Amino acid sequence: MQHIEQYQKDFLNYLESFAIDREPKNLYQPINYILKLGGKRLRPVLTLMTTEVFGVKAETSMDAALSIEVFHNFSLVHDDIMDDAPLRRGQKTVHKKWDLNTGILSGDAMLILAYQLFENYEPNTFQALAKLFSKTAIEVCEGQQYDIDFETRNDVTISEYLKMIEYKTAVLVGAAMKMGAIVAKASVEDQNAIYDFGRYLGIAFQLQDDYLDAFGNPESFGKQVGGDILENKKTYLVLKTLELGSQNEQSRLLQIMSSNLVTNDEKVSSVKELFNNSGASEANQNAVKGYTSRAFKVLEALNVSEDKKQLLRLFGEQLMNRRV
Amino acid sequence: MQHIEQYQKDFLNYLESFAIDREPKNLYQPINYILKLGGKRLRPVLTLMTTEVFGVKAETSMDAALSIEVFHNFSLVHDDIMDDAPLRRGQKTVHKKWDLNTGILSGDAMLILAYQLFENYEPNTFQALAKLFSKTAIEVCEGQQYDIDFETRNDVTISEYLKMIEYKTAVLVGAAMKMGAIVAKASVEDQNAIYDFGRYLGIAFQLQDDYLDAFGNPESFGKQVGGDILENKKTYLVLKTLELGSQNEQSRLLQIMSSNLVTNDEKVSSVKELFNNSGASEANQNAVKGYTSRAFKVLEALNVSEDKKQLLRLFGEQLMNRRV
Repeated sequence: MQHIEQYQKDFLNYLESFAIDREPKNLYQPINYILKLGGKRLRPVLTLMTTEVFGVKAETSMDAALSIEVFHNFSLVHDDIMDDAPLRRGQKTVHKKWDLNTGILSGDAMLILAYQLFENYEPNTFQALAKLFSKTAIEVCEGQQYDIDFETRNDVTISEYLKMIEYKTAVLVGAAMKMGAIVAKASVEDQNAIYDFGRYLGIAFQLQDDYLDAFGNPESFGKQVGGDILENKKTYLVLKTLELGSQNEQSRLLQIMSSNLVTNDEKVSSVKELFNNSGASEANQNAVKGYTSRAFKVLEALNVSEDKKQLLRLFGEQLMNRRV
Repeated sequence: MQHIEQYQKDFLNYLESFAIDREPKNLYQPINYILKLGGKRLRPVLTLMTTEVFGVKAETSMDAALSIEVFHNFSLVHDDIMDDAPLRRGQKTVHKKWDLNTGILSGDAMLILAYQLFENYEPNTFQALAKLFSKTAIEVCEGQQYDIDFETRNDVTISEYLKMIEYKTAVLVGAAMKMGAIVAKASVEDQNAIYDFGRYLGIAFQLQDDYLDAFGNPESFGKQVGGDILENKKTYLVLKTLELGSQNEQSRLLQIMSSNLVTNDEKVSSVKELFNNSGASEANQNAVKGYTSRAFKVLEALNVSEDKKQLLRLFGEQLMNRRV
């Protein structure tokens, strides 16, 4: 087994070789652009790592890992259009650097390219990968639709929110790992266990991301701290405040969320105070711990050596303990 | 072998059963809407027919036929956004009936659903279908990109135009037929021959469509006659006029295309006159005949009975002799 950094390096080398030098340029340049924009490459690293956990060389799952990364970037390109986001990782989004049509069409091509990356696997593996991919990709679309629907709904429940982040974010983490297991020809039980490990970890990761969006260190957190609050996003913290807070705290939160009379800084600090006082912050961090333990629990039944389980646990802990 | 109308009927029955009754409604309702909007269902009928040409029951290729139709409708939804088209088959386009985000996301889901429709085939057939599908889908994206690029280019050549319509339209007709052959486990030679038959017929079909857009009967042609002329589309007729026309005819065409001083009716009738006088209309119809003969020529080597070849020829002739 290698260090995370080595998997990252190997993956980036492979990604470099994937640069598409084909006509029409206006279709492929945006694809090369978004794929080179950076990011932690967590999902493909998980694919490679999982293949080695199951005793097969990481390089055999390189195409599957790349497929996951291409799909992830496809979803970023189309989501950025839907959110009308100007920036991604500090650079212009595709539809801003080019235009709407380029964003749509290059995204479409990426979704197809992601499937093509399975073509070098033999038919049984190909079918298993493509089936998992399609199921996951549809769920990601459903998650995005729920996210859009929630913007105009005032009766979103905690369990609906959890389902949304599971679909929009967590299933892809699970699929990234399961693909590594499929390529390694792990047993179906092990494939499903590692999928659940990734899925639970993905939910924990997103809940942690929600928390850091409000309480992270502005200097190290990649995005604007308080961004979710300013966008009135119905995160776990908001929904929990409306569940656990006093009558007074609940109405104050709703009032602040619908008011335009306070400055951004005031809004962020008032809402954070309500998150803390209502017990929502604590509930959020308990949920992070809860999903992380569920992920670790799943590992117990996994048919691999204890030191490999330890490695997966270490990875999970690093992911959850980021204080950025 | 059955009549075209019977294949159409069988396909529509199957399509009816495909209505997706799943959450989130805002994702799936637009998909059901566009799939029920009508159309001749030519591509899926070709898939079913081809399977029977190769001696296997048409119903075995029903899922592949539906995949082709779902993909075709995916491309309509996204193309309508890119063209900002308000109507499709006389009804509101998806992004007009709902909104931009719904158009993008429902389209994405359709592309994934198209792949899922192959999942009931055994691994070797699955892989063959999915590979052909991906190759074709990427070409359709490339064709759409060329079409967009051509709008702002003044040096488009005839061969570039032919490549554009081949990618944007014809390869899907070829793929529809090849899928029918794959499901029927026809030989690779026969698969490739029927693909070329469909591809050549698809090019002829699109050239005929260009012609009918200018010279079709307004009462029976589905779209506005002269639409391409009013949009200044660089069709085969335009490019051929610029190649074959006198210096005078060429400059008159360019002048009319860039002028806003004439009424729509005047513009359409002047341009049609130039198409006729320059010899472009005749060249267009010769090209239709040429590609149709190339399609028929390919049939000769096909390893099926003469009456089945005759049926394919009949279908091709009906398609090309529509005078709508």
